[in-house]
Amino acid sequence: MKTFSATEFRKQFPILQTVSDSDNIIYFDNAATSQKPVAVINALHDFYLNNNANVHRASHFLSAKATKSYEVVRAKVQSLIKAKFENEIIWTKGTTESINLVAQSYGLNFIKAEDEIVISMGEHHANIVPWQHVAQQTGAKLIILPLDDNGIIDLSEAERLITAKCKLVAVNHISNVIGKINPVKQLITLAQKYSAKTLIDGAQAVAHIAVDVQELDCDFYVFSAHKMYGPTGVGVLYGKQALLESMPPYQFGGEMIKKVSFTGTTYNELPHRFEAGTPNIAGVVGLGTCLDIFIEKPILPMIDYEQQLCHYLYQQLSKIEQVQFLVKGCPDIPVFSFTFSGFHHQDVASHLDSKGIAVRAGHHCAMPLLEGLGLDGSIRVSLAAYNTFNEVDVLVKQLQALCLGESAPQSSTNTHIENEQYSKFITQEQVLTLFSKATSWDLKHREIMLLSKQLTRLNKEHRQPQDLISGCESDAWLVVNFNTTTSKLSFQADSNAKVIRGLMVIILSVYQHKTAAQIHDFDIEEYFQVLGLMQHLSPSRGNGIKAIVERIKEIAYNYQ
Amino acid sequence: MKTFSATEFRKQFPILQTVSDSDNIIYFDNAATSQKPVAVINALHDFYLNNNANVHRASHFLSAKATKSYEVVRAKVQSLIKAKFENEIIWTKGTTESINLVAQSYGLNFIKAEDEIVISMGEHHANIVPWQHVAQQTGAKLIILPLDDNGIIDLSEAERLITAKCKLVAVNHISNVIGKINPVKQLITLAQKYSAKTLIDGAQAVAHIAVDVQELDCDFYVFSAHKMYGPTGVGVLYGKQALLESMPPYQFGGEMIKKVSFTGTTYNELPHRFEAGTPNIAGVVGLGTCLDIFIEKPILPMIDYEQQLCHYLYQQLSKIEQVQFLVKGCPDIPVFSFTFSGFHHQDVASHLDSKGIAVRAGHHCAMPLLEGLGLDGSIRVSLAAYNTFNEVDVLVKQLQALCLGESAPQSSTNTHIENEQYSKFITQEQVLTLFSKATSWDLKHREIMLLSKQLTRLNKEHRQPQDLISGCESDAWLVVNFNTTTSKLSFQADSNAKVIRGLMVIILSVYQHKTAAQIHDFDIEEYFQVLGLMQHLSPSRGNGIKAIVERIKEIAYNYQ
Repeated sequence: MKTFSATEFRKQFPILQTVSDSDNIIYFDNAATSQKPVAVINALHDFYLNNNANVHRASHFLSAKATKSYEVVRAKVQSLIKAKFENEIIWTKGTTESINLVAQSYGLNFIKAEDEIVISMGEHHANIVPWQHVAQQTGAKLIILPLDDNGIIDLSEAERLITAKCKLVAVNHISNVIGKINPVKQLITLAQKYSAKTLIDGAQAVAHIAVDVQELDCDFYVFSAHKMYGPTGVGVLYGKQALLESMPPYQFGGEMIKKVSFTGTTYNELPHRFEAGTPNIAGVVGLGTCLDIFIEKPILPMIDYEQQLCHYLYQQLSKIEQVQFLVKGCPDIPVFSFTFSGFHHQDVASHLDSKGIAVRAGHHCAMPLLEGLGLDGSIRVSLAAYNTFNEVDVLVKQLQALCLGESAPQSSTNTHIENEQYSKFITQEQVLTLFSKATSWDLKHREIMLLSKQLTRLNKEHRQPQDLISGCESDAWLVVNFNTTTSKLSFQADSNAKVIRGLMVIILSVYQHKTAAQIHDFDIEEYFQVLGLMQHLSPSRGNGIKAIVERIKEIAYNYQ
Repeated sequence: MKTFSATEFRKQFPILQTVSDSDNIIYFDNAATSQKPVAVINALHDFYLNNNANVHRASHFLSAKATKSYEVVRAKVQSLIKAKFENEIIWTKGTTESINLVAQSYGLNFIKAEDEIVISMGEHHANIVPWQHVAQQTGAKLIILPLDDNGIIDLSEAERLITAKCKLVAVNHISNVIGKINPVKQLITLAQKYSAKTLIDGAQAVAHIAVDVQELDCDFYVFSAHKMYGPTGVGVLYGKQALLESMPPYQFGGEMIKKVSFTGTTYNELPHRFEAGTPNIAGVVGLGTCLDIFIEKPILPMIDYEQQLCHYLYQQLSKIEQVQFLVKGCPDIPVFSFTFSGFHHQDVASHLDSKGIAVRAGHHCAMPLLEGLGLDGSIRVSLAAYNTFNEVDVLVKQLQALCLGESAPQSSTNTHIENEQYSKFITQEQVLTLFSKATSWDLKHREIMLLSKQLTRLNKEHRQPQDLISGCESDAWLVVNFNTTTSKLSFQADSNAKVIRGLMVIILSVYQHKTAAQIHDFDIEEYFQVLGLMQHLSPSRGNGIKAIVERIKEIAYNYQ
């Protein structure tokens, strides 16, 4: 077996060398999106510099060049997943669209009332919600396959639940939370017993294992470019030729037609009949370049390296008492999800982030799975072939530091601030002073964690559903009090994540005891900017900050 | 008014300086897609180099940076088209998807049997076929507004045809064939009289005129990034907030949900409820950079410059007797469509291409419009603000040369080839010899045109529908004869375009009098490569070459 050099591979990814503030980053969020090799970045550059034109309109030289560099990628994808025909490869904007295409074109037209659609407990929302919609529209029933203790689809349960009523089995090849390979071949055979069609969500698989759609004999296989070192905005739908040909079009417009007339329109052949409009030409060209990683270079040594990383990380994490894996056993690809005793998952992620380690916290777009495990979120660490043993060591060290309290607040500039009651909150000036002294993100993060202690916690009975603000990673509660004499609003807030409690203290330092007009007029983004928090905590939905600010403004608006 | 320097503007587009074979290109296919300024190309580069991560998942620094650079573009688009709220801007993969989103979410749910959907004769397929589908599904009727002699939607006819039955008026702001601004404000007012909704296809407008959706008061406005100097794979749907909020989701998955559970899923707020899955993050960031052209810099002087170019080209073309414009009068933006007496439109385009001028020939994804004008195609010349008066002069000179016969075949290496009957066709060796001597594309093109004379034309009665191969730009006929004694196939072929006839001679030089197996085994792509034609004539659907080769192979397959 040819060897794989992680060092050489890593060198191809410029973002991993340095990021703009010259800190090295440890990027362990690869299941969300991978980084891009310089060849892919250059391919985009080169396309726009030399070949850019619209495709399939070859009355000129440039268009012929663009079409050629675009269409050649279809054959590469065919070769990657070992499809029988090139026209079985359909471009979409991502895995989600690929599944939606099948749900709409196949699902809404071939699935009827009383039919059953079988998915599993471990699906990504993209492989749940489209089928909920099909079930709702057609009257079909959604059947959920449970997972065993190891986190893989339980085959004996599948044998019981996949019946003659089943019209489609749609499951993931590898869960984006658990990282285990599902027994898809057996599930496909089971489905075929009842002539049910099969869709395999390969979003987490293609970058980490070899895929052969003919050997699997699945009807559909879907994945995204951006999770396998390719550009954003490009996805693949593989479908068996005869099946795709039997399906009605999904989007309508240019490219997908043969002839348009007001008396009747005829549709084009595969693959174009499913590709209405100008495609993401540059994106597809970029994907072509990144596929060379998998096609021209030997993939097995790369997989082998990832396996070594995976086992090493599993060993190391297993040694930390606080780490509680979601399921039993080492994952099949380096995607690890766990909770951390005594710490909210968002606080663990936020601590790691302050040390330059990027992980995910939350429900990972798989709420039913988390809910089924009795959790409201977890920490996910997902690796790629450019990650190193050394990075794993740094992660483990930081997790150990977190539980040993080494990184816990010791002394700080703000220990003098007394824990006052919420009516006499910390002021903007105090916050500004604290943050002006905290010069790095690490130090600012520490201040946020210290400030969290200043928040008077809400009793459980005050955490009412109507006061709940759901963030992607944690929940928050906000209770309002309006003083009719002064026309001022005051707030009580709480969150299950410490980092959010700290941020709430900062937010309330400007909104507490203000009139609706004052709240409306204050530019919180600028305030975050001055505090040096904007680049780390852009008020996105992710950390819930935006939702909290919006709720406060909405409340203020109603009191105006 | 601040001045606009076309020279300075042009310098921002590296592809216009030189293309890979060091020829300068005159790019007049801007209505299909525009070229990209270096700032946009660098923005993509910079994003992947410094900020790449998935968005809206801000548990880490990189994701916060990615989200910020992505979401800031929404506000820029809001500012560009003067939308009231930022969340009225929905990202799609292009104009076509934007229209399909509305057709599916609004059309299929709010339009009922007997309702009427009003479009115009001048629409792009993307604004026809989705509505044909909605009409088919709902039982609604499609009403077609005619154009007047100037090529704009006839308002008096519109007053007659838009009635109380009308539920939606969907028309283009500017036709991609005719280049005239439609009276959309009046049409919107007319629709509002009957409480009908309005969708304006602004794909050809946003790069050339100032757009104000609040002033127009349309319900939906759609356009693509790639036609306004931005990246491929990004489009915009603007919709009025209250209307978008009343519409059901369109694709299902991550991002567009608030909470997923097997007992019931709730959807997210605008704009995310229409944006399932990981978006084209880098593409949106790239669009943001190109919007600076329109927002930060004064757009009026640029429009003024385009107007001057437009009038100049109109004047010059008007002087050429053979040029017959599709409609009366000078276009409002520099998009010109015309036929050229005595020459097939594809031959004009192919002649211009051999001189380095990129134009479009064919139906321009507006078959009903062309058919309505009694045409099977036209030449389209579409300019952008980086084009120059000098380029216009070169175009005009080449068109004049074409009709003066200056570029017509004079002497050539292949004049010695006798016009033989189709059974004794020109051989591969003869073709190889000819092309080895033709060192430039210009010379090769001339050889193709000369070879076209070697094709015995088919009589009209032999041009049967079953033998027709429809290309994007021209039609071709292929008649087969199978010799049962020798088991060899022979072909007769014809096309209405000279360039295709020439290419057919080349194709038949390898396939004529061959067995099915010989036809199957021959690598025509390699042959084209050796002849030096591949980079100019990649066998794409556009020029019909691919379709012809495929038809021959299909026939051979059936005789195997």
